[in-house]
Amino acid sequence: MPFKLARISGKAALVKGEHYYDLKTISNNVFDEDSLNALNNLDELNTLNSTLDSLEPTGLIKGALINSPISSPMNCYAVGLNYRNHAEEAEMEIPDVPMIFTKHTTCLVGPHSEIEMRSDHVDYEAELVAVIGKSGKNINKKDAWSHVAGLCIGQDISDRVVQFAAKPPQFNLGKSFDTFGPMGPFLVSLDSLDDKESLQIECKVNGEIRQNDNTNDLIFDVPSIISYLSEIVTLNVGDVIFTGTPGGVGVMEGKFLKEGDVLTTSIEGLGSLENTCKRIASHSGVK
Amino acid sequence: MPFKLARISGKAALVKGEHYYDLKTISNNVFDEDSLNALNNLDELNTLNSTLDSLEPTGLIKGALINSPISSPMNCYAVGLNYRNHAEEAEMEIPDVPMIFTKHTTCLVGPHSEIEMRSDHVDYEAELVAVIGKSGKNINKKDAWSHVAGLCIGQDISDRVVQFAAKPPQFNLGKSFDTFGPMGPFLVSLDSLDDKESLQIECKVNGEIRQNDNTNDLIFDVPSIISYLSEIVTLNVGDVIFTGTPGGVGVMEGKFLKEGDVLTTSIEGLGSLENTCKRIASHSGVK
Repeated sequence: MPFKLARISGKAALVKGEHYYDLKTISNNVFDEDSLNALNNLDELNTLNSTLDSLEPTGLIKGALINSPISSPMNCYAVGLNYRNHAEEAEMEIPDVPMIFTKHTTCLVGPHSEIEMRSDHVDYEAELVAVIGKSGKNINKKDAWSHVAGLCIGQDISDRVVQFAAKPPQFNLGKSFDTFGPMGPFLVSLDSLDDKESLQIECKVNGEIRQNDNTNDLIFDVPSIISYLSEIVTLNVGDVIFTGTPGGVGVMEGKFLKEGDVLTTSIEGLGSLENTCKRIASHSGVK
Repeated sequence: MPFKLARISGKAALVKGEHYYDLKTISNNVFDEDSLNALNNLDELNTLNSTLDSLEPTGLIKGALINSPISSPMNCYAVGLNYRNHAEEAEMEIPDVPMIFTKHTTCLVGPHSEIEMRSDHVDYEAELVAVIGKSGKNINKKDAWSHVAGLCIGQDISDRVVQFAAKPPQFNLGKSFDTFGPMGPFLVSLDSLDDKESLQIECKVNGEIRQNDNTNDLIFDVPSIISYLSEIVTLNVGDVIFTGTPGGVGVMEGKFLKEGDVLTTSIEGLGSLENTCKRIASHSGVK
């Protein structure tokens, strides 16, 4: 049965319609406040989810403080150059295998968090995000979806100077400034989606469409990424995978994010992120 | 007062002389089994450490199963090209700022763990490792040591094919195969060391010295790395920083690790790691 897992004011919750249900409360303390705990007990979560209609909601989603659905994953993996049109605009070769980097886990924030920019070269990248629900090593492509708890939206915010122009370039750090990983709004179970492999993905800046594609254009789809990664590293429950961004990123036309810009990222069936950009003091880390 | 924090059979412990003391037991459940909990309560840990002589030890270090002193840090940072002689042998420019990459946290294992090699191009890198004991952002160089709980030894094991020759090269993944981050044996408090900024560091393969240097040759010392990193990311208690390796790594002379090799990594005042190399099935991830 479809579920939506959230973190509201720091506490794991289930979402149905306009309401959320605090997991610890509605489970009489069987679950705790950590959404990782919920992912580690997916069967119990599904059972509880099926009873929501008979329970008292904790509150309305509208106006609630929504956090990233996962707070402290063991690892956050991300894939570069994973849409053909993005690889082409970047004038990069199509990779033979998924090009993996990390967003350090401290950068993950909620769907309405401010993005704190420390230079004038900060860029957006709309991405589909998969979250691991069953640990594994050497996972076959055909089994890979069974290791995914659900999907959500991610913004792979990138400081292009730190990522590319620093000496040396700092690919991971340029994408890991605190606040550079908006994620959410909810972790949506796979059975909520008509076709989990074909979802429209869109990114707007102040209402203007900048990216518009479909996740069926991914060069390496979710099972391919999981299969490749899990041959090298053990994937753990809660691990986050940013799957890559389609063409249209700002750096190509010098259209970087500015103070006050409103960034809206939407994926079919998963909702939207809406993040406002804030220019704070410049960093001194690049000479 | 000097302390040595360990994890023995998965449980946080203090070490004194030949014995270890299970933290949960000797604190009457004030501490739990997680060494992160100990780092989050350093004052209480120090108090308890000062009473060890009056307590019953849990067991002998000799023969105990010693794990990595930290099990699940939020992030593991590592620095490339941070000794002049290593940058020179690699024919790379001296970086302007610390060159940061990640070892995905799943690769961290204990001081006597087997290294599971999935190709014939696996290499050693002896490194000093710092572990964060006080969280912070924008930490000044002069305050940086006060954010460090202690030091230990790390081996930054690297699959050079995945790191450099894959299309695209996978710098982080090549250094993050499961078992590629031996670490320990204990987290040694800074006041245990006569000069924490000048420690002999050595790496041997089957008794033959391959790396031999002093941490006072670091291009970016621990405070410089912390200051640089913390301007970009929040550093959290338990975060692990591999500080880089001196010259003498195997790839330069094609001397890669082989089945059965014994890798001994020592740092003055911090003890030794001793890891045996095991060649397991090749990975297919590189085309």
